[in-house]
Amino acid sequence: MTVAIGIDLGGTELRAAVVGADGGVLAHARTATAALEGPEAVIAQMADLVGRIAPGHAVIGVGIGSPGPLDAAAGVVVQASTLHGWDDVPLAALAEARLGLPVRIDNDANVAALAEWRFGAGRGLRHMVYVTVSTGIGGGVIIDGKLLHGRGSLAAEIGHMAITDTPIRCSCGALGCWEALAAGPALGQRATETGCWGPVTARDVSRLAEAGDATAARLLAEEARWLGIGFANLLHLYAPEMIVVGGGVSECLPAMRADIEAVIRRQAMPAYRDVPIVAAALGHRAGVIGAALLALP
Amino acid sequence: MTVAIGIDLGGTELRAAVVGADGGVLAHARTATAALEGPEAVIAQMADLVGRIAPGHAVIGVGIGSPGPLDAAAGVVVQASTLHGWDDVPLAALAEARLGLPVRIDNDANVAALAEWRFGAGRGLRHMVYVTVSTGIGGGVIIDGKLLHGRGSLAAEIGHMAITDTPIRCSCGALGCWEALAAGPALGQRATETGCWGPVTARDVSRLAEAGDATAARLLAEEARWLGIGFANLLHLYAPEMIVVGGGVSECLPAMRADIEAVIRRQAMPAYRDVPIVAAALGHRAGVIGAALLALP
Repeated sequence: MTVAIGIDLGGTELRAAVVGADGGVLAHARTATAALEGPEAVIAQMADLVGRIAPGHAVIGVGIGSPGPLDAAAGVVVQASTLHGWDDVPLAALAEARLGLPVRIDNDANVAALAEWRFGAGRGLRHMVYVTVSTGIGGGVIIDGKLLHGRGSLAAEIGHMAITDTPIRCSCGALGCWEALAAGPALGQRATETGCWGPVTARDVSRLAEAGDATAARLLAEEARWLGIGFANLLHLYAPEMIVVGGGVSECLPAMRADIEAVIRRQAMPAYRDVPIVAAALGHRAGVIGAALLALP
Repeated sequence: MTVAIGIDLGGTELRAAVVGADGGVLAHARTATAALEGPEAVIAQMADLVGRIAPGHAVIGVGIGSPGPLDAAAGVVVQASTLHGWDDVPLAALAEARLGLPVRIDNDANVAALAEWRFGAGRGLRHMVYVTVSTGIGGGVIIDGKLLHGRGSLAAEIGHMAITDTPIRCSCGALGCWEALAAGPALGQRATETGCWGPVTARDVSRLAEAGDATAARLLAEEARWLGIGFANLLHLYAPEMIVVGGGVSECLPAMRADIEAVIRRQAMPAYRDVPIVAAALGHRAGVIGAALLALP
């Protein structure tokens, strides 16, 4: 069977897997990313992981999902804020030289979108938007069965769409970005600021709401409102057949569904209202599977 | 020379032109749209215009730019709020039967985007966003040299992207849409509400600002701020190489340029800041030229 290796380059963890053309994971390995030691050290880690999982498989190539912005066509990581010293790194060329296999790269959210579209929640669709809501908000957009890249692969930076004019500063420096309002830390901070529980995370809020806490339920409703406004925007901008939601905050999706749907009914024109908002199906594996898809035919 | 006929179906005016493969207009005609008389009457008007301009030309097909939402692939106008009785009209099929020529349709903003990309301000680019700012805000997005359509041609409804949480009601019923804040009527209304001049339009404000009126200059700066926020969002969402701005309000672009650029510097991440924001080059002709492009090879 034709197989490729997918590498998920995260700021904390580096994962690699041998992935078949059917999306099956045949072997996998992982290690803590040497995030402070620069690109050469991390590429050496990749070679080590590949050396552990590749033997016995007819590997045709390697795909790497990396933090961005990055230029997928050029194979260059322009900047990776979670990795020290990663500025304008020709990752594809460096990894090819080290691994002796063809290497393609794309950003982590695009790669997860690709995996969810081919083997996950979005199977069989022509147009799909993937949104990951965790410490930030990232996205990947499939149009006519292809990833939307735009100039220098800079498209679908959906977390940095401004949706409010209240002066909330985003990590990117701008005001009112969706990410600044709706990513996990924003929910956690609003929860902490209530003073009810000390420092809490998005997941804690979800659990408290499930247990019947009214303040937590109110916080989740507010989170749902911000998510719903962003989702409604994505419906008008990309016209997907489905929005697939991954990342840690997506675990709160069931508790927020009714509120999100109410916002979409209010904010979206009728033709857009029936588009399903669905939880991602592949979890963490989306990273390695989608990366491998870059190298599979 | 290969030629096609482009028809620009507006709520006020119906225009038709014979257009060459080089974008040149070889003949044209227009009439007031029978907007209250239903689709059959308007299609009869199209046949009349075509009968006046087609003779002597080897016409290979007809393209129609229409208000939307419409399904370009199906050739159906789903709804056209400026035309009475246009709901689920199979315009392509009806016009083909009447004109005896192959007919393709697309929405008016998409068609204008196509014209500006092929023969106007965006010539030679791979990725371009066209924004028309007049009584509403519409858009057309070119990615890899192709129009972005999405599900049922519903993509790029950029005017209905929410950018504020102040409760400003849009004509679509939602709150905080870009169109509700930055289209011509919004600027005109803010100007009228100052009480300085009685009822005024966006164009009046621009002229007053040019003549040195401080209140008008402040209003234009506010308009520039709303436009800039929307443009910055479009840069992150679609990653175009250029934003081309058409529609009446684009005439105020020179007076607003500095303020728009300041907003983009503040709201856009560094990789997006140098994308040119350029006035459309083809004016009203974009409608017929882009429509003809639907039928040209």
